[in-house]
Amino acid sequence: MIDDAIRPQLGIIGGLGPLASADFYYKLTRMTEALRDDEHVPSVILSVPQLPDRTEAILGNHDGPLAPLQAAVATLNALGVACIAMPCNTAHHWYDRLAADSRAEIIHIGEAVVAEIRRSLDRGRVANLATRGTLVSGFYQHRILEAGFDLCLPPDAEFQERVDSAIMLVKAGSIVQAAAETERALHLAQMAGADVALLGCTELSVVAASLGDTNGLVVIDSNAALARVSLQRLGYPVQEARGLPTVPRLRGSDRLSWRVAQQAS
Amino acid sequence: MIDDAIRPQLGIIGGLGPLASADFYYKLTRMTEALRDDEHVPSVILSVPQLPDRTEAILGNHDGPLAPLQAAVATLNALGVACIAMPCNTAHHWYDRLAADSRAEIIHIGEAVVAEIRRSLDRGRVANLATRGTLVSGFYQHRILEAGFDLCLPPDAEFQERVDSAIMLVKAGSIVQAAAETERALHLAQMAGADVALLGCTELSVVAASLGDTNGLVVIDSNAALARVSLQRLGYPVQEARGLPTVPRLRGSDRLSWRVAQQAS
Repeated sequence: MIDDAIRPQLGIIGGLGPLASADFYYKLTRMTEALRDDEHVPSVILSVPQLPDRTEAILGNHDGPLAPLQAAVATLNALGVACIAMPCNTAHHWYDRLAADSRAEIIHIGEAVVAEIRRSLDRGRVANLATRGTLVSGFYQHRILEAGFDLCLPPDAEFQERVDSAIMLVKAGSIVQAAAETERALHLAQMAGADVALLGCTELSVVAASLGDTNGLVVIDSNAALARVSLQRLGYPVQEARGLPTVPRLRGSDRLSWRVAQQAS
Repeated sequence: MIDDAIRPQLGIIGGLGPLASADFYYKLTRMTEALRDDEHVPSVILSVPQLPDRTEAILGNHDGPLAPLQAAVATLNALGVACIAMPCNTAHHWYDRLAADSRAEIIHIGEAVVAEIRRSLDRGRVANLATRGTLVSGFYQHRILEAGFDLCLPPDAEFQERVDSAIMLVKAGSIVQAAAETERALHLAQMAGADVALLGCTELSVVAASLGDTNGLVVIDSNAALARVSLQRLGYPVQEARGLPTVPRLRGSDRLSWRVAQQAS
């Protein structure tokens, strides 16, 4: 099925969404301490953007995304990968059933995130900027509590509305507006007493490098956390990413997408 | 081998280098006119950074990269892709032999680039910022001439030295310094009479969005050209990329890599 000379070590289930997985691949590359091509991890990204919506499935209590996710895991195993990364938090709702069928280790983004939080502080209150699907699934809550942190749940309904809007804006390609929405959600989290804001949806990782000053709030990027652990697990030296991409403000285009977001929300 | 529900349409041979293919994937996504995940092309990126150096092979007159490239093409065909994109100009030296063995169409980056130049102007002098391997291979020269453009070959040896340095700096992760080197090469190209500067190495595509004012010189990004044609070939609506990533200047880290570049050049 695949020649040993080109066998990937890391399999990536991408396209959930596409910009989030492009961000993951970019960060994986930028965080590898390497001067030459051949010092980078050989990998394969299977981008499956037609997968049924994960949050809709969780809120609707069905498993539509499971079968195609299992198919992706099977394909990556057939390609001989040693580890699998899934740069989509919500899809980790089905982690246990995916891991049960995989010879390759599937790196859990929740464990990567807890390790990432611990790089910054030992205790404190964590607010999770995530899809409603991830929140209902609950795989973050118990991991955060088990690690000795407290949960911060901003009481204002606007918090989740801003998060949902930011996620949708990234999917629609409007990164600048998504960053502004994320900043508003971060502000509400800090007002509610958060010490840490977890960008617990990889769409929000896309805007991480474009955020303004966060006023001392520790912001954790789940894509960067997953990239770091992926490299560590496979024995590649990790560096802090030197210069992650930011997207400059453009005139015109973002106003259009903002209207789209307003209509859809 | 792969379930129909997740079958990719576009196969991408990546890792040549890794940052160049991350840039391609980012641009492919940003250039897709889409508001939702499922409006994006399903794809697979096989990243093979351990491939033997393409320029060394061409200058040394051997075909070391051919067998692993053929293996990558075979794997992508086995995954059922309709088209293959190879975001590495130099690797197109082996295009004919790769295409001969591929059921899937391999989109030639040279043809994508000529179409991209024509979007800006009908005639003029084109300087190619490319690896010495690509220049020796010669697949660009005849395509540019056949399309009715003239070649501009900056006589100053510094031109190619700046290009080589910029490419190596991107591979070493120093995008800011690579942009400065690219700007110097662009200046030399314009001094030599170029109307168009082709970033004919996808490492230079990585710096395209970070370049300063090019003083009227038309700059063609081979990754963007390949992304555009890939989407068109598969019937996806294309938009101008709204906000491509730029990398902000960082203190400290780039000076180190600059020394590395100086030692190696």
